[in-house]
Amino acid sequence: MELSEYGIGEGISEVIATTQSEEGEPNAAPIGIINREGYFVRLYKGSKTLSNVLKTHKIAANVSNDAVLFVISAFKNLSREHFTRFQGFPVLRDADAWVIFKCEPASSGEDFFEFKLKVQAAKVNRKGVRAINRGLNAIIEATILATRLKVNENDTKEGQKQRILRKIAYYEGIVEKCGGEREKEAMKILKMFVMR
Amino acid sequence: MELSEYGIGEGISEVIATTQSEEGEPNAAPIGIINREGYFVRLYKGSKTLSNVLKTHKIAANVSNDAVLFVISAFKNLSREHFTRFQGFPVLRDADAWVIFKCEPASSGEDFFEFKLKVQAAKVNRKGVRAINRGLNAIIEATILATRLKVNENDTKEGQKQRILRKIAYYEGIVEKCGGEREKEAMKILKMFVMR
Repeated sequence: MELSEYGIGEGISEVIATTQSEEGEPNAAPIGIINREGYFVRLYKGSKTLSNVLKTHKIAANVSNDAVLFVISAFKNLSREHFTRFQGFPVLRDADAWVIFKCEPASSGEDFFEFKLKVQAAKVNRKGVRAINRGLNAIIEATILATRLKVNENDTKEGQKQRILRKIAYYEGIVEKCGGEREKEAMKILKMFVMR
Repeated sequence: MELSEYGIGEGISEVIATTQSEEGEPNAAPIGIINREGYFVRLYKGSKTLSNVLKTHKIAANVSNDAVLFVISAFKNLSREHFTRFQGFPVLRDADAWVIFKCEPASSGEDFFEFKLKVQAAKVNRKGVRAINRGLNAIIEATILATRLKVNENDTKEGQKQRILRKIAYYEGIVEKCGGEREKEAMKILKMFVMR
């Protein structure tokens, strides 16, 4: 099944994954859907997304351009009111499109498992037109850097930490110049998580 | 007039400007539409876009996510077959939306003129859903860097040039990892222009 009409194109699509625990507790976190002769995802050891997928074998891709949702879900779970259900599975209420996948183990590395994804259901909620905004892009890059900082907190060398913080500050400059309200709000939240 | 339904949101929207000379010769180049209590654009001295706008007082914003169009139009004009006309004014055939603006001089700096934009006509050609792709973002950042290299070619110090090239190489890595075919093609073209 071709997913470009649901927003999942070539290369790696940055989306927010929703999953649920065996007890049905929903979780959200940013992931990349890899499109290479089939759809794949890498889930990192220690993540709630991975532990949920290992138990329930399902993941939903929520296509969104909301900078705030990306930042919050990267560092903690989203609150209940952000979720709704599609075909009985938790998804994000405000996503532009949903794709629910069945996950089959494909390979693994030192710190991740890779799954092959089979489409189970998909729905477009909202179509639109959107010019590129460098501020939104900068939020995604800064979030990836900030996550790296958090994951390796205890064994990140001081010099490396300073280098990452400088890069985040560079992206903050782009957000200030080019971002909209949502991107500026997202950067504020990101800095709170980084400073903790 | 609110332009978000035409893809021009808050902050700065990266679009491809089309303009025409007094003789009706079309030109395309990337610009940012600034949204701050009204719409504005900064056009740089020496650019074809500026000289056309100074004569015809009109500019069209073409909303697009096509990495190749951004890269080519940043370094040279697009070929004739990319253009069509909307309300008699040149626009890009493959754009997702068009907005034609009347330009009124607003302010100026050492190397630019800023214009206030008044919407004259707007049209959505194609709505869709699109996940964020870091490769597309990387192309925009690399294009800005590469343009800077070209503009300041003669007075860019060797160390500075090497720094910019290293940053472009960093973004190339993101395109290779996350981009689709269109982003990879765009990076090839960008490197050809940079190497010249």
